[in-house]
Amino acid sequence: MESAETQIRFGILGCAEIAKKLSRAITLAPNAALYAVASRSSDKAKAFAAANGFPPSAKAYGSYEALLDDPDVDAVYVPLPTSLHREWAVKAAEKKKHVLLEKPVALNAAELEEILAACESNGVQFMDATMWMHHPRTAVMKELLDDSERFGELKVIHSTFTFAGGPDFLTNNIRVSPHLDALGALGDVGWYCIRSILWAASYHLPQTAVALRNPVLNDAGVILSCGASLYWPDGKVATFHCSFFTSLSLDLTVLGTKSSLRVNDYAGPFDEKAASFHVTSQFGFGKPLVREEWVACELPQEAGMVGEFARLVAGIKRNGCKPEKEWGVLSWKTQVVLDAVKASIDRGFEPVEIVT
Amino acid sequence: MESAETQIRFGILGCAEIAKKLSRAITLAPNAALYAVASRSSDKAKAFAAANGFPPSAKAYGSYEALLDDPDVDAVYVPLPTSLHREWAVKAAEKKKHVLLEKPVALNAAELEEILAACESNGVQFMDATMWMHHPRTAVMKELLDDSERFGELKVIHSTFTFAGGPDFLTNNIRVSPHLDALGALGDVGWYCIRSILWAASYHLPQTAVALRNPVLNDAGVILSCGASLYWPDGKVATFHCSFFTSLSLDLTVLGTKSSLRVNDYAGPFDEKAASFHVTSQFGFGKPLVREEWVACELPQEAGMVGEFARLVAGIKRNGCKPEKEWGVLSWKTQVVLDAVKASIDRGFEPVEIVT
Repeated sequence: MESAETQIRFGILGCAEIAKKLSRAITLAPNAALYAVASRSSDKAKAFAAANGFPPSAKAYGSYEALLDDPDVDAVYVPLPTSLHREWAVKAAEKKKHVLLEKPVALNAAELEEILAACESNGVQFMDATMWMHHPRTAVMKELLDDSERFGELKVIHSTFTFAGGPDFLTNNIRVSPHLDALGALGDVGWYCIRSILWAASYHLPQTAVALRNPVLNDAGVILSCGASLYWPDGKVATFHCSFFTSLSLDLTVLGTKSSLRVNDYAGPFDEKAASFHVTSQFGFGKPLVREEWVACELPQEAGMVGEFARLVAGIKRNGCKPEKEWGVLSWKTQVVLDAVKASIDRGFEPVEIVT
Repeated sequence: MESAETQIRFGILGCAEIAKKLSRAITLAPNAALYAVASRSSDKAKAFAAANGFPPSAKAYGSYEALLDDPDVDAVYVPLPTSLHREWAVKAAEKKKHVLLEKPVALNAAELEEILAACESNGVQFMDATMWMHHPRTAVMKELLDDSERFGELKVIHSTFTFAGGPDFLTNNIRVSPHLDALGALGDVGWYCIRSILWAASYHLPQTAVALRNPVLNDAGVILSCGASLYWPDGKVATFHCSFFTSLSLDLTVLGTKSSLRVNDYAGPFDEKAASFHVTSQFGFGKPLVREEWVACELPQEAGMVGEFARLVAGIKRNGCKPEKEWGVLSWKTQVVLDAVKASIDRGFEPVEIVT
């Protein structure tokens, strides 16, 4: 662990369920420290800090503004409902706080562009909280996909993220509220599907998105279940399905001309200490070779994410580095595809061209 | 093994590559026997019989007609190119031969209806050669899907069948010839995808088929790679992808509200002696439970298929049973969906309603 002097001091805006996981991650990341939490009530903030391993010296603020006004906060983690992201991410950037923003990052790409512009003009780091990007398995899998000798040419990607929310979730959770998380399942879990597809496709944007029919929306028009197909000019095809109705699935399958990759827990490894993926190859019409590869994980993926974010922040804070813009680009590409899928649903499953 | 007296005597029409596998299957099935093979040249038929375990007494005919005229042939297996199915399956039925027909069964549902009508009016059994239907794993998986306590309600199905044919295959194989197998990859491997989807959906036909964009056709218009999405009135969604370009994949994923089923070799188990599938369940937001279930297989699935077909034939031949019509219904439903996908490709990926 680094000394308290060199650790990046985090403030958390809001006491969402997911903030518990991130509090633990900040504790585990050697270069990060829990410094403050804010809620709309200081009692709630105090209770959260006490229950989630904050040190006794930590600050518990009764307003988000107060936390942002604390000059000792280096960076904020923003797990607020999506409809509040633009306001608070922009305010945080304006207070020179580096921004780790929960996904979906915004209600649409235009909002995200405002956030990214605020981060850029204030010289702060932006990163979205897509944790699995930081699991060591992700890099090992990417080596396979990038190896044309082993993997060949990428042709087909299929991704899912579903969970069965249950009756209470489907009625009361903020993720089904049009005022809080208007993108519903598409924003909450479809985000991962789209990111996984873009990741596999080396972040080349598809040209066209066509939503699958039979999406399910609640009475307020929030998506509870949907899917889409995506198309690239070189012939690549991807499909995904995301849902709040269906038992847990986190499947990613990538088919190449020489082998194929399968992982059934891509966004959240079922085992924190080690994760695997399967590679299937066949030579001619011979017996297929199926290999399972395991990748050890010293820290949970969310701690790896916090560590990477804090490393970038420390570089800016101490070494005069520029913010790494690539993370904003990945968020933006994900949001652009998400917007296109949403537009295709809104237009009765018409193809939507992704023009950038 | 049954006595030679009671075994069903098979004649094979044509010496296709797949006929080698079926010859072995007929040898392995206790209630079936290799009796005759026909080719357009008797030398070729003799060589095939000698190389594929036919008994010395077996007949090697230089024409398909001659085999059909042999009164001792009970049943024929027809591995001819698809464009010849209608002619020879109908002729076989008219000669009172029971018909085990390679897939795709016909170029379209109208052709298949002629074949089924000929089988019905001549009182012979029809079955298509979709081998995996007869693997014991298939029945065990179906028990899971049918168990609403364990599996819940079926929501999403995804299936693939791809293999990398290679340059010679893509140029010269009969499966890319417009005159022999005009349905290309959709008929050859898409057949399995569609059947697997219908199987999972308890053979309820989807209402709408929408082809995925980016299919690949050769200069003669034969499909080398394509996919589709399928929609049921109750909200179920299925997607599939089939291809001659992509490394081997035989994935079937079925997502229910309580658990999900995954199998990565559904149509052709990688191990002949035992095959597995994975069931993933999650209770609330707890840790997912992933279980691999193994099913032993005494005989290869194609021998199981031959055995089941021969059992039905024996019932008709000796006990006055009626032909089991269900197998023709399954073929017909598969072909109807295949036709709709083909129509959607032909119509620029428009939705095609499946009206029956």
